[in-house]
Amino acid sequence: MAKVAIVMGSTSDWPTMQQAAKMLKSFGVEFDAKVVSAHRTPNLLVEFAEGAADEGFSAIIAGAGGAAHLPGMIAAHTHLPVFGCPVKSKALSGLDSLLSIVQMPKGVAVGTLAIGEAGAANAGLLAAQVVALQDTNVRDAVIAFRKQQTETVLASSNTLELDE
Amino acid sequence: MAKVAIVMGSTSDWPTMQQAAKMLKSFGVEFDAKVVSAHRTPNLLVEFAEGAADEGFSAIIAGAGGAAHLPGMIAAHTHLPVFGCPVKSKALSGLDSLLSIVQMPKGVAVGTLAIGEAGAANAGLLAAQVVALQDTNVRDAVIAFRKQQTETVLASSNTLELDE
Amino acid sequence: MAKVAIVMGSTSDWPTMQQAAKMLKSFGVEFDAKVVSAHRTPNLLVEFAEGAADEGFSAIIAGAGGAAHLPGMIAAHTHLPVFGCPVKSKALSGLDSLLSIVQMPKGVAVGTLAIGEAGAANAGLLAAQVVALQDTNVRDAVIAFRKQQTETVLASSNTLELDE
Amino acid sequence: MAKVAIVMGSTSDWPTMQQAAKMLKSFGVEFDAKVVSAHRTPNLLVEFAEGAADEGFSAIIAGAGGAAHLPGMIAAHTHLPVFGCPVKSKALSGLDSLLSIVQMPKGVAVGTLAIGEAGAANAGLLAAQVVALQDTNVRDAVIAFRKQQTETVLASSNTLELDE
Amino acid sequence: MAKVAIVMGSTSDWPTMQQAAKMLKSFGVEFDAKVVSAHRTPNLLVEFAEGAADEGFSAIIAGAGGAAHLPGMIAAHTHLPVFGCPVKSKALSGLDSLLSIVQMPKGVAVGTLAIGEAGAANAGLLAAQVVALQDTNVRDAVIAFRKQQTETVLASSNTLELDE
Amino acid sequence: MAKVAIVMGSTSDWPTMQQAAKMLKSFGVEFDAKVVSAHRTPNLLVEFAEGAADEGFSAIIAGAGGAAHLPGMIAAHTHLPVFGCPVKSKALSGLDSLLSIVQMPKGVAVGTLAIGEAGAANAGLLAAQVVALQDTNVRDAVIAFRKQQTETVLASSNTLELDE
Amino acid sequence: MAKVAIVMGSTSDWPTMQQAAKMLKSFGVEFDAKVVSAHRTPNLLVEFAEGAADEGFSAIIAGAGGAAHLPGMIAAHTHLPVFGCPVKSKALSGLDSLLSIVQMPKGVAVGTLAIGEAGAANAGLLAAQVVALQDTNVRDAVIAFRKQQTETVLASSNTLELDE
Amino acid sequence: MAKVAIVMGSTSDWPTMQQAAKMLKSFGVEFDAKVVSAHRTPNLLVEFAEGAADEGFSAIIAGAGGAAHLPGMIAAHTHLPVFGCPVKSKALSGLDSLLSIVQMPKGVAVGTLAIGEAGAANAGLLAAQVVALQDTNVRDAVIAFRKQQTETVLASSNTLELDE
Repeated sequence: MAKVAIVMGSTSDWPTMQQAAKMLKSFGVEFDAKVVSAHRTPNLLVEFAEGAADEGFSAIIAGAGGAAHLPGMIAAHTHLPVFGCPVKSKALSGLDSLLSIVQMPKGVAVGTLAIGEAGAANAGLLAAQVVALQDTNVRDAVIAFRKQQTETVLASSNTLELDE
Repeated sequence: MAKVAIVMGSTSDWPTMQQAAKMLKSFGVEFDAKVVSAHRTPNLLVEFAEGAADEGFSAIIAGAGGAAHLPGMIAAHTHLPVFGCPVKSKALSGLDSLLSIVQMPKGVAVGTLAIGEAGAANAGLLAAQVVALQDTNVRDAVIAFRKQQTETVLASSNTLELDE
Repeated sequence: MAKVAIVMGSTSDWPTMQQAAKMLKSFGVEFDAKVVSAHRTPNLLVEFAEGAADEGFSAIIAGAGGAAHLPGMIAAHTHLPVFGCPVKSKALSGLDSLLSIVQMPKGVAVGTLAIGEAGAANAGLLAAQVVALQDTNVRDAVIAFRKQQTETVLASSNTLELDE
Repeated sequence: MAKVAIVMGSTSDWPTMQQAAKMLKSFGVEFDAKVVSAHRTPNLLVEFAEGAADEGFSAIIAGAGGAAHLPGMIAAHTHLPVFGCPVKSKALSGLDSLLSIVQMPKGVAVGTLAIGEAGAANAGLLAAQVVALQDTNVRDAVIAFRKQQTETVLASSNTLELDE
Repeated sequence: MAKVAIVMGSTSDWPTMQQAAKMLKSFGVEFDAKVVSAHRTPNLLVEFAEGAADEGFSAIIAGAGGAAHLPGMIAAHTHLPVFGCPVKSKALSGLDSLLSIVQMPKGVAVGTLAIGEAGAANAGLLAAQVVALQDTNVRDAVIAFRKQQTETVLASSNTLELDE
Repeated sequence: MAKVAIVMGSTSDWPTMQQAAKMLKSFGVEFDAKVVSAHRTPNLLVEFAEGAADEGFSAIIAGAGGAAHLPGMIAAHTHLPVFGCPVKSKALSGLDSLLSIVQMPKGVAVGTLAIGEAGAANAGLLAAQVVALQDTNVRDAVIAFRKQQTETVLASSNTLELDE
Repeated sequence: MAKVAIVMGSTSDWPTMQQAAKMLKSFGVEFDAKVVSAHRTPNLLVEFAEGAADEGFSAIIAGAGGAAHLPGMIAAHTHLPVFGCPVKSKALSGLDSLLSIVQMPKGVAVGTLAIGEAGAANAGLLAAQVVALQDTNVRDAVIAFRKQQTETVLASSNTLELDE
Repeated sequence: MAKVAIVMGSTSDWPTMQQAAKMLKSFGVEFDAKVVSAHRTPNLLVEFAEGAADEGFSAIIAGAGGAAHLPGMIAAHTHLPVFGCPVKSKALSGLDSLLSIVQMPKGVAVGTLAIGEAGAANAGLLAAQVVALQDTNVRDAVIAFRKQQTETVLASSNTLELDE
């Protein structure tokens, strides 16, 4: 059965990155979450990324903030698809994280999601969409999730009332 | 056999987007390229995106510039993984394209690549990495490509000479 | 009698977008507010926008945040004038919303207002100015509003006092 | 018969702003183009804007670059709908023009289009869409233009060929 | 005796702009503070700016936020030196205010200060420096202020202690 | 008779900064132009700025690019009004120059003009406006210049013709 | 024994800059912290920077915010290595500080660290790394610190748990 | 004798990075230049950085563009001082390179220089300044270089002449 890895540069990224985990869990996709810092545990990064395919992961979700090198460095050490999550940073609100992750040179790719929690949730969704190519249960769960959120929006128009 | 769709908002995006096509071709992944404009052919967009899974596509690469709505709108109409390519724009050099593509709300995901040709090439690479999960030929081709580019870089150090 | 549609991507945009509604109400212009998400209810979007002219709307005000595709996609499906409101976003304060709305390609137009509540109020004002071309009551109400705010500003100079 | 005013801060804005004129002309909407500088002919600005409604204009398109005050100041002196065109500036590529035009305070509205020629063309389109509310010929011309550009895009997919 | 005008677009700018007033007061320079909105009281703006030289002002300090047109429009109607203060805006933190004020076209000049309170205080200082060219009392007060602040900084090094 | 100093960080700034010189010359205001680099001739900077008042200058115009420290450091060593010109820089088009000059802390002021040649010309104009407070010839020349440019703009509307 | 100078433009920078001091202290590197304002105590700056080599400092860490001229001006007066810390600013969150410090012209260098506390801490680390070239105790302390933080990250993965 | 390593992500960075080499050469500091790509030769990166201290390097200069991970990853694998050079990128002019290099998290430091050639030259200068702490020949060469450039600037004022 397919599983997805979620890695992040620091435990302080977990409030953001657990949105990816929750999304995967809601689709019944197994995941493994761990802290792997590009700068503080660079050897672990190499070991993790080089072993990820053999560990049976189908995709890797990597989140980091500021000069966010984790997703790109993970991608440099694996042929698995890597999805990058720019974590909101203190001074520049994640613009630095976004550019550090998305502006990869030709030859090593990171599929980048939005800054912050919405992006992390969508990384979980996108990884599930990849898994769904091989797993009809996950595909059906993704389709059901999308249908469900459509219905939620449709129902919400009734709540619009002018404040006094 | 897996195939990948490449769509773009205008023929003027083709010099950028054909980098994705070339990358896929080099891995032996079949692709289909067509012009689908979110704003000028919105009905074609719906028809294309809703039929893409049944057409047998494994992933969709979508490129657009400026207020780039194509990748997100494609993603809104399919459960296939969608990869977005911000095309460099005239006034703002693609920063507008990037933010319009990557900053998707929770619930509809676009894996976004770098602005311009490098990003488009990487979209082809990332789509091939997704296809490679099911196809060992493509997986081997991706691994060979990565090995090849490592060797090219290793060989290039000899060329560094100071200009007079 | 003329009426104006106000649509937004999510109920969380309502605190912003109701400023448009309040402005229209103050001019005696009828309005209809509803949630239409470009990404989560794309088919509703098509249906709504394609039917808006026949429903008797004179203009459509559309607000969204982040990768804000709603105004442009509405405009792609109607020949009515569309006014776009960039809702302030969490990480990038609405700069992403602004660029996603205003940077439309040639051939599909969105008249864009300022980020946030002031812009939404002005969308209501601008829509009323359009309605006023055909309706002298609304025109007189707009002129009176503008005169009123001039007087309010003129009266306010007296209040300037140095803090201790 | 409805007509639209096109004003700009300098003759150097004309290569951009004539795109609005051409668009209006293609719809059979009469227009008047003139140079009115907020900073260099401020009295002409007041005279022009205060007289525009009586002159029979239905909308005013105003373009300027840099610290672009023309659209907002025109709007301050009229109740007609005003559409603003940020002209690309030398140093900041029109980001200054865009923010100077779009970020209007509550109470005076400018519907802003994209930076540069595409935005100017769309200002002409948007003004025509406003005129079309009262003029079925213009409405039909707008609808025909939109249909035409859809067909052009649909036909263009055939031209995509990989460079050698 | 020389005096300086302080104008601002709204009473909500007063907490910022009173820093200019306080600075002028500390140098013994007379000032007049009033609300003049470029957009909401455009005729007052013309009347005020055209009369400012005859009223005996030596310089005009103008503050505004967002699409800040006040300083540039004041400058368009007077030959007195105009100093512009970008007031911090809600969404874009005053970057819009700054660009709207500083990026004036050739032929009408605004000497622009920093965003927010420090900039407003410095507008008062700069206006006093202009007045000081003709008034030795003010010149001596400016020199004394500068000497005083040097001494304050010199004395402050002692206070640096590591938190536990 | 009043005179104005023009200083710049490098001879490469002269194509920009001579616009200030030309403007002053056109008003009959004497000027002195020299290269003073904050970083490469810091002692000259101190000597120049501390002596400028005694040399009889009424104002100092300082231009620099990138991490542009010249205007602020000049201001730190004189009580004369200092006007700063952000020279367009290679990578960031003068945004770095602008922020380095305008964002001065409370207590040392630089009146900042637009990026590039228009800003340099306006620095000359603003310095002349300061000189004009004491010199009716310069005042009349400034007023005549402003009248002249108004007439030039008024005459220019005739030239607007659609390209074929 | 080697020692490092820490200078900052204001006592309000101390909460940021003391992170550099703490880092140096943890490595057993002596330091001297003082307030030196480029704008308010420019003569002290010259005196300090020109004497720093003779005082026995091995490196200078300089922090400032906004139009941050301190690091570059220190570098202009010494041949010691200078490391610059952009302090987070009120309006622009330190983007102005960063560009004012890092974008130095050829010929005077400032090694710039990240905006805010992390950057200040890293300035202390980098200065210690320079000192470590000559001092094996410091080198061993740096290596131990790096090993320690690797272990802390490795241990932290266990703490990741989904919120309910 | 001290030597400095210069590494870059690609031979296309050499026109920029050779400015560092030229600067070092002019001071008589030995250097080694090679291509090491964080993404394309990640194992070489580890090997190089971990061995650099034993190879006898005193400092490492690392340049890269876009999502520039090289300087930070080098720093993660060595205790030598690392100086980072943001190479100008195609779409975003090096703003992405700058933020990717400078915004490092606490615990791994990169002293960052300006975008482009000036920054690369200054990286050579800064590395020489570090070497100069132990080598009086290099110190004297740095001091002579600085004196020389001061004289060049002082001599350049004579060349300022108004264009006709």
